[in-house]
Amino acid sequence: MVIFGIDPGYAIVGWGAIGFKSNTYKALGFGAVETQAGMDFNYRLEYIYDEIFNVLNRCRPDALAIEKLYFQNNQKTAIMVAEARGVILLAAQKLKIPIYEYTPLQVKTAVTGYGKAKKPQVMEMTRKLLHLSEVPKPDDTADALAIAICHAQAAGSALRRTMFERRIGE
Amino acid sequence: MVIFGIDPGYAIVGWGAIGFKSNTYKALGFGAVETQAGMDFNYRLEYIYDEIFNVLNRCRPDALAIEKLYFQNNQKTAIMVAEARGVILLAAQKLKIPIYEYTPLQVKTAVTGYGKAKKPQVMEMTRKLLHLSEVPKPDDTADALAIAICHAQAAGSALRRTMFERRIGE
Repeated sequence: MVIFGIDPGYAIVGWGAIGFKSNTYKALGFGAVETQAGMDFNYRLEYIYDEIFNVLNRCRPDALAIEKLYFQNNQKTAIMVAEARGVILLAAQKLKIPIYEYTPLQVKTAVTGYGKAKKPQVMEMTRKLLHLSEVPKPDDTADALAIAICHAQAAGSALRRTMFERRIGE
Repeated sequence: MVIFGIDPGYAIVGWGAIGFKSNTYKALGFGAVETQAGMDFNYRLEYIYDEIFNVLNRCRPDALAIEKLYFQNNQKTAIMVAEARGVILLAAQKLKIPIYEYTPLQVKTAVTGYGKAKKPQVMEMTRKLLHLSEVPKPDDTADALAIAICHAQAAGSALRRTMFERRIGE
């Protein structure tokens, strides 16, 4: 199963594709789409849409996993992040890729087994699970890979549950 | 000059196209894109994008005027409105239509001359300015037409300013 993780944003969109088979992970590719602060915001949206569409179109993952948004203090920034997230969801939808959403708590718990894990712990576990020599940069890319791992665990346990239920039913 | 106004949302997107010439307005067309609550949200985003893209592509306005978002209590709704607004901005950007944003205060002031005008007053003035027999329904459509009028006034006064400055410069 190929899973594409995204950490949404408008200045930096982190992305990472992983393969998941027999409970082991493999990093297939990762990176970030970056837009400059001086650019017209509507052009930034278009650039993000085009870049994410292109990488998804090349990768054709079985699922897209993306972080849920929770708004905090800066409402202006929050609106812009949500607008960018809208065009990212559209890119996946246009390619008919199923979309799954996870909270930061779900991601932390999935990757480290501990909901109060700190960011460096999550990143280090992401690196280990993917057998990488270094934590990918920028942080948004590492976050995107962690979100993909989170979906792999959720999908994996759903699969195990189905198999178990089938065995029970036999 | 043809101006396309949009009142953004995810359940209802109001839209209205107006012509503006020699300080008079004409309604060229208006309506609303509606999505059902039971639909998958990502499909709602795609539907809104496709419908707005198609109507903009037929209309080919000189400008798109859209309401600025201000977040209130319900953050979940606010995020969904911003995500829908993102795909609306993308549709205009893909068609290279210049985008202008106005606050509710700017719209009220432009249409009624009074920033504290109530919603029914704004709607009634919109109806009068466009020589319509009734206020368009739903409210989101009337709002979209008011936003278009707001841009016409802003663009009109910018034009008058330029002509005035040119005359001064002669």
